[in-house]
Amino acid sequence: MRENDFLSWIAAHTPAHARVPLNIGDDMAAVRLGNDLALLKIDQCLDRVHFDLLKHTVTQAGRKAVNRCLSDCAGMACLPAAIMVSVALPREGPGSGEAAAKELFLACRDTGAAFDCPLVGGDTAIWDERLAITVAALGMLTGDADRNEIRRSGAKPGDTLFVSGQLGGSIHGRHLSFVPRIALAQKLAKTAGKHLHAMMDLSDGLAQDLPRLCKASSVGAEIHTAQLPIHPDAEASSAFDGIPAGLHALADGEDYELLFALDPEAVPDIVNLDEVPLTAIGTITADKTLKLLDAANRAHPWPNAGWEHRT
Amino acid sequence: MRENDFLSWIAAHTPAHARVPLNIGDDMAAVRLGNDLALLKIDQCLDRVHFDLLKHTVTQAGRKAVNRCLSDCAGMACLPAAIMVSVALPREGPGSGEAAAKELFLACRDTGAAFDCPLVGGDTAIWDERLAITVAALGMLTGDADRNEIRRSGAKPGDTLFVSGQLGGSIHGRHLSFVPRIALAQKLAKTAGKHLHAMMDLSDGLAQDLPRLCKASSVGAEIHTAQLPIHPDAEASSAFDGIPAGLHALADGEDYELLFALDPEAVPDIVNLDEVPLTAIGTITADKTLKLLDAANRAHPWPNAGWEHRT
Repeated sequence: MRENDFLSWIAAHTPAHARVPLNIGDDMAAVRLGNDLALLKIDQCLDRVHFDLLKHTVTQAGRKAVNRCLSDCAGMACLPAAIMVSVALPREGPGSGEAAAKELFLACRDTGAAFDCPLVGGDTAIWDERLAITVAALGMLTGDADRNEIRRSGAKPGDTLFVSGQLGGSIHGRHLSFVPRIALAQKLAKTAGKHLHAMMDLSDGLAQDLPRLCKASSVGAEIHTAQLPIHPDAEASSAFDGIPAGLHALADGEDYELLFALDPEAVPDIVNLDEVPLTAIGTITADKTLKLLDAANRAHPWPNAGWEHRT
Repeated sequence: MRENDFLSWIAAHTPAHARVPLNIGDDMAAVRLGNDLALLKIDQCLDRVHFDLLKHTVTQAGRKAVNRCLSDCAGMACLPAAIMVSVALPREGPGSGEAAAKELFLACRDTGAAFDCPLVGGDTAIWDERLAITVAALGMLTGDADRNEIRRSGAKPGDTLFVSGQLGGSIHGRHLSFVPRIALAQKLAKTAGKHLHAMMDLSDGLAQDLPRLCKASSVGAEIHTAQLPIHPDAEASSAFDGIPAGLHALADGEDYELLFALDPEAVPDIVNLDEVPLTAIGTITADKTLKLLDAANRAHPWPNAGWEHRT
């Protein structure tokens, strides 16, 4: 079964609940807690799937596991209030032993601490299988009473679509070393205010993730391939495998950059917001299809690519 | 390394944070979120460690994974507000395939729903190892402004120690089928009020868990072995292995019952509180040692037993 089909099945089997204004399907869920909103996320990193302990250190694995969760906080424009980490440690082989367990704890603790996010809970067990790290994050909205979480579902026809940073080729190392765009998301939400209509973090690649944003917003999009900010790592992949760098930028995944839909009125306000570059890559359309436009404005079908897991 | 040593090492390497009134070391952590308190827990259930898919169904595994987390909510006398579930699914063998993934989701969803606790988030991946289920819970305190979470650290010399239900022999099936004592904990907190000094859920066995409550409270305890509520399953284990049923009751673990320290003044109020029996098993002492007293009041050393994991 394709991941998107499984996610749709789960959404269809998840009843509404008065305590849950935002349910399964966005970067995080929102749960009412008294007068406050708790944003929640869980995410796992598995040896040989999300990292490889034959090549990567336990510190790199822990850092990635925590930062993936924090990147979802960025996607909602919330701040991480706390994380918890559960680890299934291998009895033997890479990642086993007391030293590795301590290294992993410190890596997770310090990765959160860089964002003033304390590690407040955990669970440890030993088994005969490979290392599994699961991170749960609690997110909070900042003090300003006007501030809401930024969902995937608010994009409107005519919005300008932006991505932060550069895309593609993260396998060369950025999938481990990326920095969650929490500070940038805060600046965007504060500067653009209600003009920031929709946002998410790019974890599975634009080819997979933009359709999710469009589906949640009941809109389509036109992307100008010539405007895609292609990372030099994508060029390196292209030189190696002959696949166009632009396709790597669309489909590789694990960019952990922000994708957002902005009212054109607010575009001038955000152009030089941060040292992280922001690039307009296209436009939200009322027509619910997704189009790739080349330099001559010819439409190409949306690539059936990106990192889609199978169940 | 022994689990308790690792937990102590973690606690020593977890700095205080203004947002965290209750840090790592209790059944749940507490994090300030605006004016409200978010209680947080993460816990994992692994194939061949916490369940065995050669003998147990995926539904039983999911139910146990969720209920273990909800039992910690009972231990704090809070209500579960939401759960998230992350699953690493095996590519082949027991627990693999779309039907198992769906069965697992429904089991987790329904187990939470039985306590009005919605499943609001998850993560799914496939790998070449066995099934791993990780559950995170968000707990909330009920409306009454006087109500606080019940910690492990409030026990006072002279308090009466109680356990709910019966202990020992959970391996015969109760480790999968137990019902978290959420309703009972709510009744206790409401009825006993400030007289309910300390509480936790019994997951690793009284022999392991009571020392943790005593250490957190800087107290000791005397337990009357003749008063221990021994489950018939412990008798069954004893008949099989010749180990006294009382030792099974102390050391087997996975009881998921409540252990609490109550001001003697409130004892009459709770005696017939619920259909779940509550048994006074001993007394909190200023002397920080733990003693087992036999029927003739002779002291025996605390058993070095219980389910302690190793790292």
